[in-house]
Amino acid sequence: MASAAPQQAAQPASAPRSKKYDPTKPHITEQPMTIHNWYKHINWINVTLILFVPLYGIIAAFWTPLQWKTAVWAVVYYFMTGLGITAGYHRLWAHSSYTATTPLKIFLAAMGGGAVEGSIRWWARDHRAHHRYTDTDKDPYSVRKGLLYSHFGWMVMKQNPKRIGRTDISDLNDDPIVVWQHRNYLKTVITMGLIFPCIVTGLGWGDWKGGFIYAGILRIFFVQQATFCVNSLAHWLGDQPFDDRNSPRDHVITALATLGEGYHNFHHEFPSDYRNAIEWHQYDPTKWTIWIWKQLGLAYDLKQFKQNEIEKGRLQQLQKKLDQKRQQLDWGIPLEQLPIIDWDAYEAEAKDGRALIAVAGVVHDVTDFIKEHPGGKALITSAIGKDATAIFNGGVYNHSNAAHNLLSTMRVGVLRGGCEVEIWKRAQRENKDISFVSD
Amino acid sequence: MASAAPQQAAQPASAPRSKKYDPTKPHITEQPMTIHNWYKHINWINVTLILFVPLYGIIAAFWTPLQWKTAVWAVVYYFMTGLGITAGYHRLWAHSSYTATTPLKIFLAAMGGGAVEGSIRWWARDHRAHHRYTDTDKDPYSVRKGLLYSHFGWMVMKQNPKRIGRTDISDLNDDPIVVWQHRNYLKTVITMGLIFPCIVTGLGWGDWKGGFIYAGILRIFFVQQATFCVNSLAHWLGDQPFDDRNSPRDHVITALATLGEGYHNFHHEFPSDYRNAIEWHQYDPTKWTIWIWKQLGLAYDLKQFKQNEIEKGRLQQLQKKLDQKRQQLDWGIPLEQLPIIDWDAYEAEAKDGRALIAVAGVVHDVTDFIKEHPGGKALITSAIGKDATAIFNGGVYNHSNAAHNLLSTMRVGVLRGGCEVEIWKRAQRENKDISFVSD
Ligand code: HEM
Ligand code: HEM
Ligand SMILES: [Fe+2]
Ligand SMILES: [Fe+2]
Ligand SMILES: [Fe+2]
Ligand SMILES: [Fe+2]
Repeated sequence: MASAAPQQAAQPASAPRSKKYDPTKPHITEQPMTIHNWYKHINWINVTLILFVPLYGIIAAFWTPLQWKTAVWAVVYYFMTGLGITAGYHRLWAHSSYTATTPLKIFLAAMGGGAVEGSIRWWARDHRAHHRYTDTDKDPYSVRKGLLYSHFGWMVMKQNPKRIGRTDISDLNDDPIVVWQHRNYLKTVITMGLIFPCIVTGLGWGDWKGGFIYAGILRIFFVQQATFCVNSLAHWLGDQPFDDRNSPRDHVITALATLGEGYHNFHHEFPSDYRNAIEWHQYDPTKWTIWIWKQLGLAYDLKQFKQNEIEKGRLQQLQKKLDQKRQQLDWGIPLEQLPIIDWDAYEAEAKDGRALIAVAGVVHDVTDFIKEHPGGKALITSAIGKDATAIFNGGVYNHSNAAHNLLSTMRVGVLRGGCEVEIWKRAQRENKDISFVSD
Repeated sequence: MASAAPQQAAQPASAPRSKKYDPTKPHITEQPMTIHNWYKHINWINVTLILFVPLYGIIAAFWTPLQWKTAVWAVVYYFMTGLGITAGYHRLWAHSSYTATTPLKIFLAAMGGGAVEGSIRWWARDHRAHHRYTDTDKDPYSVRKGLLYSHFGWMVMKQNPKRIGRTDISDLNDDPIVVWQHRNYLKTVITMGLIFPCIVTGLGWGDWKGGFIYAGILRIFFVQQATFCVNSLAHWLGDQPFDDRNSPRDHVITALATLGEGYHNFHHEFPSDYRNAIEWHQYDPTKWTIWIWKQLGLAYDLKQFKQNEIEKGRLQQLQKKLDQKRQQLDWGIPLEQLPIIDWDAYEAEAKDGRALIAVAGVVHDVTDFIKEHPGGKALITSAIGKDATAIFNGGVYNHSNAAHNLLSTMRVGVLRGGCEVEIWKRAQRENKDISFVSD
């Protein structure tokens, strides 16, 4: 197989996934979950970060008055750390959809850390696997395993590292900021997730506790839930204008929840495009922000798929839907399944009183249609037993497309010799010299 | 020509179009309009009915107080006479889209008369010509001659009766109500257009003059202008979901103005359907009214085109639009226009440093794409000079439709022998026994 070599190249030059992980020992996920071992299946660190800490925050909020300055700062910091994930982790590092200068990279690594969703390196590796193996067992957060699984089930439950598809992250291993953030992840999280937002409110207006609870813990919870929606909601709700083979979907609700990552059908089809929304009226603040950074000289090389390619994708998907629709409609008996009738037999049957009309070499039974004919009974009746090709196609009236469609549902046979038969036959009768072709 | 006989059948068994009309003398429209003969080109009867009388009504309205009862009655009578045209003249008599009992027919002939738009017989004859010869010179109110012409220009200016397409109106000549109304047209107009609405307000609440001006003259003006929109606006504003060869269009504004006749693209395609709007949420009070008459036993045999035929028309129109779009996009150089390259030449050129990748027998130049490849530089580079058919199609990654499209824009040549060449060549090199097919 020619694919052997690239398969090798696809192997990540990855550091061990966990200090404790020993590939020779069977992994806990290979054992069925029982009443005795269920707690071993749970990823307690993640449960703490995603569920217990927010729960503490919600309870503590009852005893913590919310100052409006703190509220504003919490929302601002929500957007900043959210952008750390969407513009940083996702569009910059996982997809290299643009290039960032070092100051911007440091900012994004810090903000993304403050969202408490793992290191860039870990996040981007999983995300690349998600794109490459979408909806398969190798997809770390496959929506095929349930909406809740794709939302956070995949973090709450321990995962077998062998299961998740391999991807090339050599570019990330070459990025010193990514490597530094990975090595110093815990420090980053505590500093940017809790200490920094708390210092702002504390030094700014003396609200240490409010900063900790609202701009820290609860803000983390909201950022997490919002960005998790990209893996759940974006694979579950909406349209599929570019491809319907897999689960990604476009929806404005997802976009509103995820700082613009809601045009996910587009994104899976054109992953290295720095945009998720391609129309100006769609909500994609992450795109807008990247664009502003470009104007400020902080970002460059913003990648865009050509409009031509995007339109091709949209067109093919529309074509696919049209073809599916076409299959459900009745287009009349296919010509090759119709019996072949001789001209004389056709004429004779029509004279016998059967309402047959030949158009373009095909015989139609119009019995049930005569009284419904929009052009009146007289005209349609006058064509019975004749070759009506010319009169149907403009000789008397140039019938619409709809009339042609309707006609094809009335097919009962094909004329031996095709549509010119009547003229030939008559010529033959009148002038025996004319050569007559018959099959 | 086989069409000779039906052409004859299509001749209307028509009464002379006007007492004064003599087909042997040249018609006024055959002479160019000059400063001396312009007034002969004007149809003064119509100008009086359509413009002068309403003008008088508008002026008289300044001296005529509007009572609210009279206003309500004017609106009610507007709808009744409007339905006389849409449900009567148009859908019943011009298109036979349903059958009406005698009482309903008498009601519709009276109401339609009250709208002052000509007799049923005259109106339906022109309307059938409009459908049969839409947009051509034989169309009595072709929009191709201008929006204003199609609105009322065709009535204001004298028309050459020879120009207007012939249609079969034998069914109308067999209808005693139609014939009676045609013979007694002036009486009908004066009775139903002016006297009757005036009697209602006069005997009802003593407002003789208000009834005459508002429920009579001005109401006539509004009904006329509204129904004229079917010939102008409906051929000018909106979408063409079923056929775009001719001018008819669908638009909700036209529907609102015309008691539901605004789905005119549908109507021209399916003229004998008693509906103009096919969706429940579209505005078609004429359809609703006919349906109610059916429930009351006043109308029966409501004709509908099969949903299958309607969907076929819609689908074909969508297909047509898609095909037009397809033509505007770049799909790469067609295979038959590409040079044929030998496998060895391909391998050699790739070794020489040109970034060529063969997929499915076609050679692609990916030079400009390597750094943009969403799957990374390493993977795509590894395929240079190889047959990448299998790795591109799932061996490493099952590329999306978008990737296939993009690939086709990079075509530079076709491999002699097709896509299996590499395997065959290798087999040949390794085992000289294998038979090798070359063209
Ligand atoms: C053989 C089967 C026929 C079918 C299925 C058929 C179908 C139709 C349909 C659906 C229309 C509505 C307008 C349109 O869709 O274009 C129509 C109109 C018409 N048909 Fe036919 N037709 C048939 C045969 C004929 C023949 C043989 C003649 C003439 C000899 C004829 C003359 C007309 C005319 C003059 C109209 C125009 C009516 C109008 O728009 O006012 N048709 N026909
Ligand atoms: C020959 C020209 C190639 C083109 C035009 C191309 C194009 C693309 C495109 C457009 C994508 C984005 C996802 C998608 O649309 O499916 C993609 C992703 C990918 N490509 Fe290629 N590719 C090429 C060659 C290759 C080769 C030779 C390999 C492997 C040896 C490869 C491996 C991948 C992988 C693994 C991804 C997944 C990246 C992800 O979704 O994270 N590609 N490619
Ligand atoms: Fe996704
Ligand atoms: Fe992504
Ligand atoms: Fe029309
Ligand atoms: Fe019509």
